[in-house]
Amino acid sequence: MSTEVYPQSPRNELRRVADRGRYDRATVHEILDEGLLAHVGFALGPQPIVLPMAYVRLGESLILHGSPANRMLRRLAEGVPACATVTLLDGLVLARSTFHHSMNFRSAVVFGTAREITSLEERGEVLERLVDAVVPGRSADARAANHRELQFTKVLALEIEEASAKVRTGPPLDDPEDLEHPCWAGVIPLTLQAGEPLDDTAHPPTKPAPAYAKGYRRGVP
Amino acid sequence: MSTEVYPQSPRNELRRVADRGRYDRATVHEILDEGLLAHVGFALGPQPIVLPMAYVRLGESLILHGSPANRMLRRLAEGVPACATVTLLDGLVLARSTFHHSMNFRSAVVFGTAREITSLEERGEVLERLVDAVVPGRSADARAANHRELQFTKVLALEIEEASAKVRTGPPLDDPEDLEHPCWAGVIPLTLQAGEPLDDTAHPPTKPAPAYAKGYRRGVP
Repeated sequence: MSTEVYPQSPRNELRRVADRGRYDRATVHEILDEGLLAHVGFALGPQPIVLPMAYVRLGESLILHGSPANRMLRRLAEGVPACATVTLLDGLVLARSTFHHSMNFRSAVVFGTAREITSLEERGEVLERLVDAVVPGRSADARAANHRELQFTKVLALEIEEASAKVRTGPPLDDPEDLEHPCWAGVIPLTLQAGEPLDDTAHPPTKPAPAYAKGYRRGVP
Repeated sequence: MSTEVYPQSPRNELRRVADRGRYDRATVHEILDEGLLAHVGFALGPQPIVLPMAYVRLGESLILHGSPANRMLRRLAEGVPACATVTLLDGLVLARSTFHHSMNFRSAVVFGTAREITSLEERGEVLERLVDAVVPGRSADARAANHRELQFTKVLALEIEEASAKVRTGPPLDDPEDLEHPCWAGVIPLTLQAGEPLDDTAHPPTKPAPAYAKGYRRGVP
């Protein structure tokens, strides 16, 4: 990581509301590290296909995985251009005018190409990192993937070539002439919240839910 | 809407874990109607670009909007193939084996092409529907968009040509030989929750937060 900002090109240039755009690695990484799902796009000819995937950022790569039969993973492993977008929705912005209604959000758009991780040892390591990224501490309790399971898991590292972030925060921005319009204006905050852990109903566990499950909070390792 | 299921083609065929796949309109519509953001993909040559967008489903269209300068909207308005994906994350599935860790989710993947809505009257109508889809009841209170604002808003209807849904629910599915592994197993439920409405700090509103803001719940009109 030689520079603190991602390179800018027509591909990741932020044209609209340019003041909400960021190219610094710190902002992009923070969004990627808080998110749980990326929406990954690839093209089949002129047809884009966008699918949700779990991921973990390791350095300047996003780790993706799935079945060896997964069409998207097979296509990405060929090194075609990919785009992975992570969006965190933080609130609904209710302005006095319909026109200025908005959402508070943080999004990161990553452009890059993927390489397959062929070493079973490396696959095991990065999948453990994924488990702990989603639920910190979980990999110490669960049974690690065995040789057969690792063979049946396709694992890709999507290298981040370019990236950008967009962030909107704060109250509505109404036009001055609307400030007297007689309605409430403000923000409805939104957060992804965890409920009480539910025991495996098919096979009740012999141990109680651990602290990392009972106190689960997104984005707080 | 002449049939209850979307047509199947190589584009929307669900190859992996096929039993989680659905093609019925009711399931696809339910997911689209609960979501607040779609991740919309288009291709610039071989390069896919995926961006988050607010939307509302009206019949068999998704309404998208933004600045006339928005690159994606301009491109989509040319009628290029588009993909819009909506994912609702319902929980983290902690199995006894790392391999069977998963997520409970509902996702809808829509394929189609967009047409621009050129009538200002129709633009105003569908944007009002969008506001009310996000916050039911809001359009009655906010100032409606005026002529100038509608002229400065690009509005597209992305017609749903094909679609599919994937749904995972329920407990972890461990292999029989792992059931004695000494760790907790179950699901951490996740929901997008609304907090207490925050008054516009820049210009404190003269009215208190209405019921639709104080009692906001996603997916409950």
